[in-house]
Amino acid sequence: MTRNIVQTLTSDKHAKEFSPFLEPAYQVKPGEWIRIETLCASSGVIKETVRAATNDELHAKTGWVHGMPMTGPIYVEGAEPGDALAIYIDEITMDDYGWTVAQPGRGAAGELIEEAEVRVLPICDGAVEFGFGVNLPLRPMIGAIGTAPLDQAIGSGIPEAHGGNLDCTLIRPKATLYLPVNVAGALLGMGDLHAVMGDGEVGMAGLEVNGGVVAKLGLIKQTTMPLPVIDTGETISVIVSAPDLDEAARRSVQDIVKWIAAETELGINDANMLVSLVGDVRICQIVDPLMTCRLDMPKSVLATIGITLPDLSG
Amino acid sequence: MTRNIVQTLTSDKHAKEFSPFLEPAYQVKPGEWIRIETLCASSGVIKETVRAATNDELHAKTGWVHGMPMTGPIYVEGAEPGDALAIYIDEITMDDYGWTVAQPGRGAAGELIEEAEVRVLPICDGAVEFGFGVNLPLRPMIGAIGTAPLDQAIGSGIPEAHGGNLDCTLIRPKATLYLPVNVAGALLGMGDLHAVMGDGEVGMAGLEVNGGVVAKLGLIKQTTMPLPVIDTGETISVIVSAPDLDEAARRSVQDIVKWIAAETELGINDANMLVSLVGDVRICQIVDPLMTCRLDMPKSVLATIGITLPDLSG
Repeated sequence: MTRNIVQTLTSDKHAKEFSPFLEPAYQVKPGEWIRIETLCASSGVIKETVRAATNDELHAKTGWVHGMPMTGPIYVEGAEPGDALAIYIDEITMDDYGWTVAQPGRGAAGELIEEAEVRVLPICDGAVEFGFGVNLPLRPMIGAIGTAPLDQAIGSGIPEAHGGNLDCTLIRPKATLYLPVNVAGALLGMGDLHAVMGDGEVGMAGLEVNGGVVAKLGLIKQTTMPLPVIDTGETISVIVSAPDLDEAARRSVQDIVKWIAAETELGINDANMLVSLVGDVRICQIVDPLMTCRLDMPKSVLATIGITLPDLSG
Repeated sequence: MTRNIVQTLTSDKHAKEFSPFLEPAYQVKPGEWIRIETLCASSGVIKETVRAATNDELHAKTGWVHGMPMTGPIYVEGAEPGDALAIYIDEITMDDYGWTVAQPGRGAAGELIEEAEVRVLPICDGAVEFGFGVNLPLRPMIGAIGTAPLDQAIGSGIPEAHGGNLDCTLIRPKATLYLPVNVAGALLGMGDLHAVMGDGEVGMAGLEVNGGVVAKLGLIKQTTMPLPVIDTGETISVIVSAPDLDEAARRSVQDIVKWIAAETELGINDANMLVSLVGDVRICQIVDPLMTCRLDMPKSVLATIGITLPDLSG
């Protein structure tokens, strides 16, 4: 496959929110290969390991200001409210270092942590050198990616129906993410790349990196499919964010059961049984203002009953 | 490997609770191969598809009484309070049919369901014939397995620190489960086999089957490791049940961070970062009286930093 990148979108043009009120920074045609360069969650300021007695002191010492920069907004030609915007992720590249954190009171184990720390780790030969003899193979992903909500601005740290800070490990190379188009042009933004992150992002961060994404955009016109959806080639998942994991999990199940019952010959009982037998409800992240779950269904099973999604990879 | 099965434990001897007050039905030596036969969650009464207007009517029509039968209790020679009981699962066999359910108001999509139904599906050539052209490859697992709590009886439908109705898809062939020993002999019981089930058991059931488990037991004497733990060969996971998913997820992270900090040269900050980068917090089930999560760590990473578990497979 020849990949002719027609436009590079640099990270100097970015916003710290997803908003219908922002002017587009870039304009892209569906079907074009583009490269989107992104800054890490600290806007690129963290470059060395720093320890401090408190989280406030850590932020002061590093110069790390809150609000993650999302490259964009990107106006997608032809995108209209009611469409689904498809983002096919072909490749993710990154700098040769990244950083992660431990912060007292933050993350699932925050109550055990006594010293605030950002730690920089080298990336070499396709792995993160963690120390203690441990090398972690890269599993690059996009932490935050979203479109403009209809009538409000939402900060880049928040996950919701527009996408945003989903922190879903499946938003990775060779996967296609589907997001809602709420306003003309969609106003896509992305950033917060991770070199590696476990499901849950349980300690408040993955390995946070500056980097770039090679992608192609597409549109599904006027669709009623639930959104966001991520298609990895092996699985198709509905992603839901909610105030707690129980609600996020429950709604992700309901969304896929309703989708199957609406689009196939299966009824509600059939769909409930099929999803219970081969649908995996999984956690994306547990550390953002809302919690995010997804429901993974085998793509081959959905194809057999008649639910398919386009292939943008070629 | 020669597998000389020295004892078959039949399902006629079973209990519907895990309890220190029950007399043992069987006595087993660590290191012996045993075969445990089990009845399905309906005690074997569901053999055909039945539909009804209400859940109560469905139970009346099928003769399905609540309470899942756990084969046992099994007295394990040498097991003392403070030990961990290891159950290596070599093989799971099953009848050539199973059943699943849809019940109004029950399960993650219960509010969408209008008609109560148990549906029997055939198992043929290693797959469940779901209908609609869909065949689901078998992924057999043990739904409920536990030891006696210290000073109370707990119904077989409940997951807790003693194990019980964990509904964890990793409790499968070639995996080793570790459970706490709270009373002399451990008083192990198991049942509720599933031919296939998605993470979450979101529709209230997997494909519920009568069947058998070939297993070998072992003991880790006087351990402080968190329990229950499941070792699949690829991952080692801590399993936690709690009133909601948020607490179950959080506690599973804390348990593994504390375990790493206690047993290796890594400190709390190191452990928090390592778990955040490569630990996956996942959902076991969302439909039992408590919710169950697990934290999966790559076994190779734990081995590198010095946490290993015995191999009982030989």
